[in-house]
Amino acid sequence: MPRVAAAGKPTAKISKSQNTKARVLHEALALASRIGFQGLSFGTLAAHARLSKSGLFAHFHSKEDLQIRTLELASAMFVERVLKPAVAAPRGVPRIRRLFDGWMAWIRSDSVPSGDILISCAFEFDDAPPGPMRDAVVRGHHALQSTIERLARQALEAGQLAPRTDPAQFAFEFLGIVHAHHHLRRLLGTDPRARRARLAFERLLRDHAAQPHRRRAAR
Amino acid sequence: MPRVAAAGKPTAKISKSQNTKARVLHEALALASRIGFQGLSFGTLAAHARLSKSGLFAHFHSKEDLQIRTLELASAMFVERVLKPAVAAPRGVPRIRRLFDGWMAWIRSDSVPSGDILISCAFEFDDAPPGPMRDAVVRGHHALQSTIERLARQALEAGQLAPRTDPAQFAFEFLGIVHAHHHLRRLLGTDPRARRARLAFERLLRDHAAQPHRRRAAR
Repeated sequence: MPRVAAAGKPTAKISKSQNTKARVLHEALALASRIGFQGLSFGTLAAHARLSKSGLFAHFHSKEDLQIRTLELASAMFVERVLKPAVAAPRGVPRIRRLFDGWMAWIRSDSVPSGDILISCAFEFDDAPPGPMRDAVVRGHHALQSTIERLARQALEAGQLAPRTDPAQFAFEFLGIVHAHHHLRRLLGTDPRARRARLAFERLLRDHAAQPHRRRAAR
Repeated sequence: MPRVAAAGKPTAKISKSQNTKARVLHEALALASRIGFQGLSFGTLAAHARLSKSGLFAHFHSKEDLQIRTLELASAMFVERVLKPAVAAPRGVPRIRRLFDGWMAWIRSDSVPSGDILISCAFEFDDAPPGPMRDAVVRGHHALQSTIERLARQALEAGQLAPRTDPAQFAFEFLGIVHAHHHLRRLLGTDPRARRARLAFERLLRDHAAQPHRRRAAR
């Protein structure tokens, strides 16, 4: 996930222009949610949000800039709704579990962004030519992978995961479950596979649980 | 995977028109590999393969027909290169293992279709509006899921997987590993994650191995 530039508490000094920009970015995110980030341009956004193109030029340098700021907004929302609540849980397995729960809820969410726009975006740009937006997506992947690795390492240090646990492998498999769930949910509609993703996650945790407390840690 | 219409042995009576159609389909697959199935149309294919659009009309009813036939060719190639060699291995875990190995090789392959065009196509259409192409993609997913389920059930019947194994869950997790690998390979370039996918697969097998022969069956 890219750096979360626009997140944080609003201050009293936010200008009208910044407010407008924030509103425009929410419109851009709603549009990207529907048609993909690659379809997001000054033209499509102006038509969608009933704004003038020249008004948009005042806020964004280029189409890429618009796309990247929109991705940053989605990332900031993910941080607020998924990462921060996870980090509020006790270190170790409870935190990993809270992350998974929050992520599943985020995928299920019908709000904007609907489904998991960060994963959609990653799929959209995985075969795109090099460019700033693709770079942002790759950075986003590494950030997520690192976050999960860090949580796994904390659980390992707390003695809740088995010493043989490879945090990078754990993170790869965690992300794999989330990706597969996201994809099948979009392909097959509704949520018949949520239970499968949950079972896969429980197996991942159980398999890596520290031996003496295997059952307890896996609960 | 859709029915494999065009596969099978060539007969002596194949007409010139059928030969041309087969050649055109290979061109279409090469193009779809590069620009996606949604970009595949009479216009783009004519330009790519230096054919006349009217010549293409003789072979395909519509753009959707062209896309579906092209997907069927990719499916037929997958059957030849991945499924048939897997089924030639002894029933049970060896067959599942051969399927995984073949699939990884198919994803790695630099030939056309490069990477895993079937998965790319599934990602491409997972949020597309309803239509014959999306239906074909969904049928393809169900066919793959069923194939893996069947292989898992055979291994279960052979006493190689633990009785608690749920073949549908096994298939979901198998597909999840393959999808995650495909996606990360495209996003991050080269193949740094092949080892991770392999480890995840070994864990899946080990976890479901029948208890008495746990180590042996997991080898």
